[in-house]
Amino acid sequence: MEIAGFRFAAVNAGIKKRKLDMGLLVADTPAVAAGVFSQNRFRAAPVLLSEQRLRRGACQVIVVNSGCANACTGRVGTRDARRMAGLAAQALRVPDRLVCVASTGVIGRPLPMDRVASAIPVLAQGLDPRSLDDFARAILTTDKGPKVASGRIRLSGTPVRVVGAAKGAGMVAPHMATTLGFVMTDAACEAKYLKRVLEQAVEDTFNAITVDGDTSTNDSVYLLASGRAGNPPLHADDKAGRRFRALCTEVMRELALSIVGDGEGATRVVEIVVRGANRDAARSVARRIAESPLVKTAIYGADPNWGRLVCAIGNSGQDFDPRRVSVDIGSVPVVRGGVGVGGAERRAAEVMRRPRYAIQVDLGSGRTTATIYTCDLTHEYVRINAAYRT
Amino acid sequence: MEIAGFRFAAVNAGIKKRKLDMGLLVADTPAVAAGVFSQNRFRAAPVLLSEQRLRRGACQVIVVNSGCANACTGRVGTRDARRMAGLAAQALRVPDRLVCVASTGVIGRPLPMDRVASAIPVLAQGLDPRSLDDFARAILTTDKGPKVASGRIRLSGTPVRVVGAAKGAGMVAPHMATTLGFVMTDAACEAKYLKRVLEQAVEDTFNAITVDGDTSTNDSVYLLASGRAGNPPLHADDKAGRRFRALCTEVMRELALSIVGDGEGATRVVEIVVRGANRDAARSVARRIAESPLVKTAIYGADPNWGRLVCAIGNSGQDFDPRRVSVDIGSVPVVRGGVGVGGAERRAAEVMRRPRYAIQVDLGSGRTTATIYTCDLTHEYVRINAAYRT
Repeated sequence: MEIAGFRFAAVNAGIKKRKLDMGLLVADTPAVAAGVFSQNRFRAAPVLLSEQRLRRGACQVIVVNSGCANACTGRVGTRDARRMAGLAAQALRVPDRLVCVASTGVIGRPLPMDRVASAIPVLAQGLDPRSLDDFARAILTTDKGPKVASGRIRLSGTPVRVVGAAKGAGMVAPHMATTLGFVMTDAACEAKYLKRVLEQAVEDTFNAITVDGDTSTNDSVYLLASGRAGNPPLHADDKAGRRFRALCTEVMRELALSIVGDGEGATRVVEIVVRGANRDAARSVARRIAESPLVKTAIYGADPNWGRLVCAIGNSGQDFDPRRVSVDIGSVPVVRGGVGVGGAERRAAEVMRRPRYAIQVDLGSGRTTATIYTCDLTHEYVRINAAYRT
Repeated sequence: MEIAGFRFAAVNAGIKKRKLDMGLLVADTPAVAAGVFSQNRFRAAPVLLSEQRLRRGACQVIVVNSGCANACTGRVGTRDARRMAGLAAQALRVPDRLVCVASTGVIGRPLPMDRVASAIPVLAQGLDPRSLDDFARAILTTDKGPKVASGRIRLSGTPVRVVGAAKGAGMVAPHMATTLGFVMTDAACEAKYLKRVLEQAVEDTFNAITVDGDTSTNDSVYLLASGRAGNPPLHADDKAGRRFRALCTEVMRELALSIVGDGEGATRVVEIVVRGANRDAARSVARRIAESPLVKTAIYGADPNWGRLVCAIGNSGQDFDPRRVSVDIGSVPVVRGGVGVGGAERRAAEVMRRPRYAIQVDLGSGRTTATIYTCDLTHEYVRINAAYRT
């Protein structure tokens, strides 16, 4: 997979034992850029640095490592993030202000800077437009495999592409920029509008997934535009702008769904759709269902125990009339008027044995719909997380 | 275990296959009574009925079943709850208004009223002051064993006792009345003050525990006072009142802790203490830690991965200065000034292998302390909940 105007590289720097653990993303010329970052109160040093640098809407280089989050590392961490960016700037001869950094992995350990420093010149030497897959592999932690997605449209006759790579399997929750995501386009786009496109697309994609309800200290999603497609620069939600935004959303949704599908230990992906409420209420109910351990284990066991769904809905803290609530599992009605529909369980259990299906809730009092994607809570989730480091 | 003025009975009514599944609690004369009930938006029929009847501050009979929650059962459920109470009133010759009902078990199925109706006269025949243990067994669902606790003090020379029975292992969360709890005393107490005692004691006990963050549709905690001890009726937070309240809190804490200790699949109980914040912030941070699946699996694996604690603290939505945060596991400092304390992990891992310990967080900006008790998230939790009914 290639995208005009960008090159990539990946190496094993020795942060992890054998796997690729450092990646480099370089635009041929400074790209128009935007980012969305973790809302966790403990934001890691690379997040703080990169957010600051993106304020000008430009970025040429992102240097990334996995295996160490450089979070909760105090002044040492701040210095290391700056130095990691500085070494990349030096190796590629670009100004420091055009370099961002991203780190992911264990919290609280300092970066092994000697290894990082040795790896950066090797990365700079190895840049290749065809190396996005290697880059996508270098950013992984507990992920089972790399996550890339792409799409294309024509804007007034000009072909435009969007490609992206992401990582994430645990510490994934909605309502914040989650995991690491790097989305690139060859479209020309003004900085202010690019930021708006990213923020809106994140809301319906990376912010609409949950694995375990925890947002990490390091979550970052970037959107970089090289302008190489040669289209008239996108600048507003006109027809071209909307189509471009839809394309970005589509690519980012595919990345986000591959994160849920690769959720730690996940065997099924379930789309939780809540309608008939105002937006905040619908989101809150969808999230409450999506994060309930009792719902997630019932999904694992393909157990049409809709009482757990109703219980989670009722625990959302939202106000609604329980007697107007409907629930469907796939296309099987299981609750109508707040009461169970007799005899539906066998058919609902059939739906729940599928690897992917939807649970639909109607609260019966409002017009907005919210969707959250979640996965099941399995033995494998417990195995992975009870023994992450030991 | 006995408590003057109360008798108990338990039978297998056939709601479950073999186990005791119905219990009866009867005061010799109408008791002064208070209750705290689920805040779930879908409150079960027995909860709605009992809450209403307790408004007068009096109760003589509570009839309880396990195996079926009689929740989300619509008009049929309301009629069944009334009929269950009515049958007990009839069998015991007390007015309907002095009878409460409590149900626990699977949500959404109607009560098998023929079995309930046959069992009630048998229960009424079998009342015995020494049958509290059987009663405690009849209210269980996924619990591994019965939960009873007791304590005694002297109030101006008069011995006063408090005893209680509770159930709960899943769908247990703080900030609401959780699980079923029946606390009885022989003390004399005015109704208004008894309600206050119960509400305050619940806050620090049943409302300070979490197994999986879900509050059920049926949670109820009762406090009944027979007055048989003959003390001057308690009526305010004077010295006698405070000592009585402390005793009730102690008995209820023991019951609450036995619920966490019996949390579905739990192998460890951890006390999460958050200080250095205002009360709401401290509670919110403690709860966020206590409910994080990543923290709960780290507790299971005895993995001193304090990054997950810090991540949960940062996700609480509360405002504080990350650079002033300290974390201790047992007596081992693992975070100071928001940064990891080097070399602490081996000693912290030793603490985490204990069956019970404390995690202490200081946010460094406020004076209040909040405590929440939680348990680990284990393979057994997943096994139990992926196959609860099937």
